[in-house]
Amino acid sequence: MRIIGIDPGSAVTGFGIVEGAAGVFSHIAAGTIRAPRGASHPDRLHNIYRHLRAIIDEHAPQAMSLERNFVAINIQSAFRLGEARAIAMLAAAERGLELYEYTPTQVKMTIAGFGAADKAQVKAMVRRTLRMDASIALVDDAADALAIATCHLFRARFASPARSAATRAANGLSGGGIIE
Amino acid sequence: MRIIGIDPGSAVTGFGIVEGAAGVFSHIAAGTIRAPRGASHPDRLHNIYRHLRAIIDEHAPQAMSLERNFVAINIQSAFRLGEARAIAMLAAAERGLELYEYTPTQVKMTIAGFGAADKAQVKAMVRRTLRMDASIALVDDAADALAIATCHLFRARFASPARSAATRAANGLSGGGIIE
Repeated sequence: MRIIGIDPGSAVTGFGIVEGAAGVFSHIAAGTIRAPRGASHPDRLHNIYRHLRAIIDEHAPQAMSLERNFVAINIQSAFRLGEARAIAMLAAAERGLELYEYTPTQVKMTIAGFGAADKAQVKAMVRRTLRMDASIALVDDAADALAIATCHLFRARFASPARSAATRAANGLSGGGIIE
Repeated sequence: MRIIGIDPGSAVTGFGIVEGAAGVFSHIAAGTIRAPRGASHPDRLHNIYRHLRAIIDEHAPQAMSLERNFVAINIQSAFRLGEARAIAMLAAAERGLELYEYTPTQVKMTIAGFGAADKAQVKAMVRRTLRMDASIALVDDAADALAIATCHLFRARFASPARSAATRAANGLSGGGIIE
């Protein structure tokens, strides 16, 4: 199962692609899409869209895991965030990807075991879970996107009735941080 | 000059195409894009996108006039509205259309001469300005989109230094409702 995770933002959108096979999760790719300097608002959205489509076409994920952020500082930031999220949703719908949404707290609970985990803790757990070599650079927005993608892998796995508690234990996961 | 006006919405997006030539404004097309029954959220956005692109390709407007609504009932409705607006902006950027944005008050001031005009007054003024035959049905969202498009025609005309006050008077416009 291959998943693309998206951390949407008008200025910077993070993406991360992960794969889960035989109980092992791995990192395929991650990075950020940045607004071109001086770009108009429509051009920023168009830039996110073009890059996202190219990334989806290159890595062929089956599903998209998207951050669902219900907390915005104000109406203006809600508008901006809604715009970036819409572009990701559109790219998913156009390429026939299933869409899953998780709140930041759900992602932190699933990855780090507690909802108040900070960025450094989430990043460290992402590196460990995906067995990423320390030589691979990982900026915050890309790490967040990998966390969002990995969150879906965990949840999809535990949601599967075919997997036993023994298998979970063998994978070193208590399951305590998982919200169903 | 041909303009597409958009009244964005997650459930219903209105569109209207108007043309201004030799001081005469005319109605080219108008209608609504409605979410398919039971469609998922990404599919709704995809539906708006596909239809908007087809409408732009059919009528070849040079610019898009989009409602800029800074008033939302709550954060959730701001997210939803931001999403629909993003799809319109993306379609404009993809097809190389210039984007202009007007608030509802600016549209009402320009079309009806006062910012508190109600829907029926705006619709009546749109029909009159675009010399639409009474036999042409016009639903609210399509009328709003035509008003947004017509608003840009008025403003683009008055903004032009080539046009004299005499020409304005000849067109029967006082210009009193125009905010520059």
